[in-house]
Amino acid sequence: MAKVNDNYLKLPGSYLFSTIGKKVKEFSEKNPDKEIIRLGIGDVTQPLAPAVIDALHKAVDEMGNADSFMGYAPDLGYSFLREVISEKDFKARGCDIEADEIFVSDGAKSDCGNIQEIFGLDNRIAVCDPVYPVYVDSNVMAGRTGEYDPQLERFKDVIYMKCTKENGFTPDIPSEVPDLIYLCFPNNPTGAVMKKEQLQEWVDYANKHDSVILYDAAYESYISEADVPHSIYECEGARDCAIEFRSFSKTAGFTGLRLGYTVIPKSLKTGGVDLWPLWARRHGTKYNGAPYIVQRAGEAVYSAEGRKQVEEQIAYYMQNAKIISEGLKDAGFEAYGGVNAPYIWMKTPDNMTSWEFFDYLLEKGNVVGTPGSGFGPSGEHYFRLTAFGSRENTERAIERIKTL
Amino acid sequence: MAKVNDNYLKLPGSYLFSTIGKKVKEFSEKNPDKEIIRLGIGDVTQPLAPAVIDALHKAVDEMGNADSFMGYAPDLGYSFLREVISEKDFKARGCDIEADEIFVSDGAKSDCGNIQEIFGLDNRIAVCDPVYPVYVDSNVMAGRTGEYDPQLERFKDVIYMKCTKENGFTPDIPSEVPDLIYLCFPNNPTGAVMKKEQLQEWVDYANKHDSVILYDAAYESYISEADVPHSIYECEGARDCAIEFRSFSKTAGFTGLRLGYTVIPKSLKTGGVDLWPLWARRHGTKYNGAPYIVQRAGEAVYSAEGRKQVEEQIAYYMQNAKIISEGLKDAGFEAYGGVNAPYIWMKTPDNMTSWEFFDYLLEKGNVVGTPGSGFGPSGEHYFRLTAFGSRENTERAIERIKTL
Repeated sequence: MAKVNDNYLKLPGSYLFSTIGKKVKEFSEKNPDKEIIRLGIGDVTQPLAPAVIDALHKAVDEMGNADSFMGYAPDLGYSFLREVISEKDFKARGCDIEADEIFVSDGAKSDCGNIQEIFGLDNRIAVCDPVYPVYVDSNVMAGRTGEYDPQLERFKDVIYMKCTKENGFTPDIPSEVPDLIYLCFPNNPTGAVMKKEQLQEWVDYANKHDSVILYDAAYESYISEADVPHSIYECEGARDCAIEFRSFSKTAGFTGLRLGYTVIPKSLKTGGVDLWPLWARRHGTKYNGAPYIVQRAGEAVYSAEGRKQVEEQIAYYMQNAKIISEGLKDAGFEAYGGVNAPYIWMKTPDNMTSWEFFDYLLEKGNVVGTPGSGFGPSGEHYFRLTAFGSRENTERAIERIKTL
Repeated sequence: MAKVNDNYLKLPGSYLFSTIGKKVKEFSEKNPDKEIIRLGIGDVTQPLAPAVIDALHKAVDEMGNADSFMGYAPDLGYSFLREVISEKDFKARGCDIEADEIFVSDGAKSDCGNIQEIFGLDNRIAVCDPVYPVYVDSNVMAGRTGEYDPQLERFKDVIYMKCTKENGFTPDIPSEVPDLIYLCFPNNPTGAVMKKEQLQEWVDYANKHDSVILYDAAYESYISEADVPHSIYECEGARDCAIEFRSFSKTAGFTGLRLGYTVIPKSLKTGGVDLWPLWARRHGTKYNGAPYIVQRAGEAVYSAEGRKQVEEQIAYYMQNAKIISEGLKDAGFEAYGGVNAPYIWMKTPDNMTSWEFFDYLLEKGNVVGTPGSGFGPSGEHYFRLTAFGSRENTERAIERIKTL
C-alpha cells in the first residue's frame, strides 16, 4: 500500500499569500465599488525592459528556424549567460566566482526550496524570524524540522534567530550551533541589510563550525549604500562555507519569465564531500534547463542598454519605497527598510496584531499589505508594504494610510 | 557540522548521456574529418511550429507593455491552458479530467523526478527494466532504494520488472506487491506500447493493492494504432490509483522551451490522504509557475492551425522511424518499436554488448545511438535509435548501418 510523506501533514495552514488572496477576494465581492490597491505580494508591475523584449523576439525567431533552433539546454545553463554573470555580478565586484560555478535555473524560489535536498536529514537548520516561508516549509517537507508547536508557532527542531528592532533586524549568533544557516540580505520581509563586517562574522562563524550558509541575495540590486555587500563572496572565506542564490525576478522584472541562478563554489565541501557535483547531479536528474529564449533575455540584462533600463526600473521602485517610508513616518508610524530593499517594514499602530491591521487597512483604506506575523512570530505587530506598485497607486495608498 | 545527503553517493557513475557526450567528443577530436550523425539523445530537430512562434511573439509583446504585463503566474498554471488541456487531451477522449486536476510545469522530467517527494520513504517502488533513468535516480536521492549492487546493476530495494522480447517489452505483474509503480507507455527506450486491456489489468491491480501508478505518457502523441490508450484515464478506476505525466517536448518540439503537466485526480487518495493538496503544496512552495509566454505557446499547440502543424512534425518523425525500422530489418537486424513511438529498439548483432556496439557504430559508421544497457541490465545487447533527426541524416545513417 502506498504511503504519503507524513511530513507534509505537519505544515500548518495554507500559504500566506493564498490566505491574503482569499480575504481580498471576499472583500471585493462584498464591496464591488471599492478600488483596492495592492502593496502586498512582492510582484513587479513595470513591463520588461525594451532590451529584454528585443532579445526575446530575436530568440523566438531563432526557435522558428531549423538552422538556429535550440533543443535541450545544457543542464547547468548556456555559457553565454554563465560567463556574463561571472564577469558582471562577481568578478567586477572582486569576487572569485567562475562561470562553471554558476547553475542557471528557473528562479531563486525553486533553488532555495530544493537546495536542502543535497544535505542529510540530520542537519539542524537556522532561520531568521521573521523569514520568507520557503526555507522552513521545504525543510518541513523533507522531515528536518520536527513537529509544529502551534502555541509557539514554531517547529521543534529549527533554530529561530529573532530579528527585531533591537538588533536592527539582523540576527545574533545563536546559542546552539546550526548546521545549515539561511540568511537573506537585503532581507525579505524587513528590508534590513548586513554591513560587510557583520556578514564577515557569519562567514567566520560558519567556517569555524563547518556550517554551510545558504545566502539568498535575491534583492541585491536594490542596495544603495556603499558598505553593504552585494554578494557573500565579498567576504573572505565564503567560498569555503557559502551557497548563494540570485534572481532576475526583482532585478529585471522576470517574475513571469522565471530565471535565477545558484552559486556553488568548487571549493565548498561538507564532511570532505564536494557539494558542486551533488547539485549538478540534482540538476541533471530532476531539471532540464531554463528555456533558451529566457536565458537570452537574461543575457540582455547585462548589455549596456539593458543594464541602463533595469537600473531605471529599480530607481523607479526605490522612489516608491521612499514615498512609502517617508509618508509613513510623516503620518507618525514607525517604519524600517526601503533604503537598500524594496520592502518597508512598519510597526502596526495601537498594538494591533498584524492580521488586525491587515483587516483594518483593507476595510478602511482599501490597501492590501502583508501581515508580519505571516513571516514568523517575531513579525507579529509588524506589516510589510512593497515598493513594486505603480507610482500613482503607491502615492494614493500612502494618502489613504495618512488619512486613516 | 553540515552533513551531505549520503544517498546521492549511492548513485553509480554519471548520467548516461554525459558518458555518451564524452565518448563522441573524444572521437571527433581524434577524427576531425568524420561527420557524425546523432540518433542518440531524444532531442527534436524540427523548429517550433509557426502557430507557436506567433503566440510567443504576441505574448512577448504583452510582457513589454505595462497594461498587459504578466508577473507571477498562478502556481498551478493559467486557466487558459488548463482548460484547453482538459478539453482536448482528456474530455475529447472520454476521460473525466477537470482543468483544476492539471498542474502545469516546466516539463515531465521535473515532475517525474519530483513526484516521489509526496510519498513516504517507506514505499517500495517498481520500475520497468530497461527504464528512463530519472525514476530510479530520483528515488535513490531520496533514500528509497537501498544500496546499489554493482554485480546485479540494481538497487537492493527496487522491484525491477523485466521487459524483454518474450513479454513484448511490457512488464508482467511482479511477485512482490509494489507501493509505487512507474509505467511509461509508449515506452522510452523500447518504443513498446500497452493495449488498453493490458493497462486496465495494471489499474485493477493497483486498485486492489492500494498501489499508485505513476504513468509517464510523454510520447502519447506518437500513437498510431487505435487500441492503444493515450491516457491511463481511459481505463476504468484510474482516477483512484494513477497520476499521469505529459510533456510538450516531443508533442510540439518544446525541448528547449520547457512545458509539461501532471494530472492528479481529486479522487486519488493514499491511506485516506488526498494527494492533490500535497502536490499543490509542493508546487506552491518549491516552484513558481511556468513562464506566461511559454504557457501561451502551449495554448497555441491546441489551436486548429497549431494542431495541424505539430501533427505534420510528428508525421515527419514517424516517417523517420519507419525508415530506420525498415532499414534495419532489411539489413538483417532485429528491430522493435517505431510504430507508436519515436524510438527504435534494436538487438545488437553477433552478441555484442550495448557499449561494444556503440563504439563499433561510432567508429565504423560515425553514427551515435544509445546503448540499451544504459537503461538497465535487461537493456544489455540492445541499442536505441531515435527518429528525431532530419530526414536526410536519418536516411544517411541507415545507409551507413546497412553497409557496416
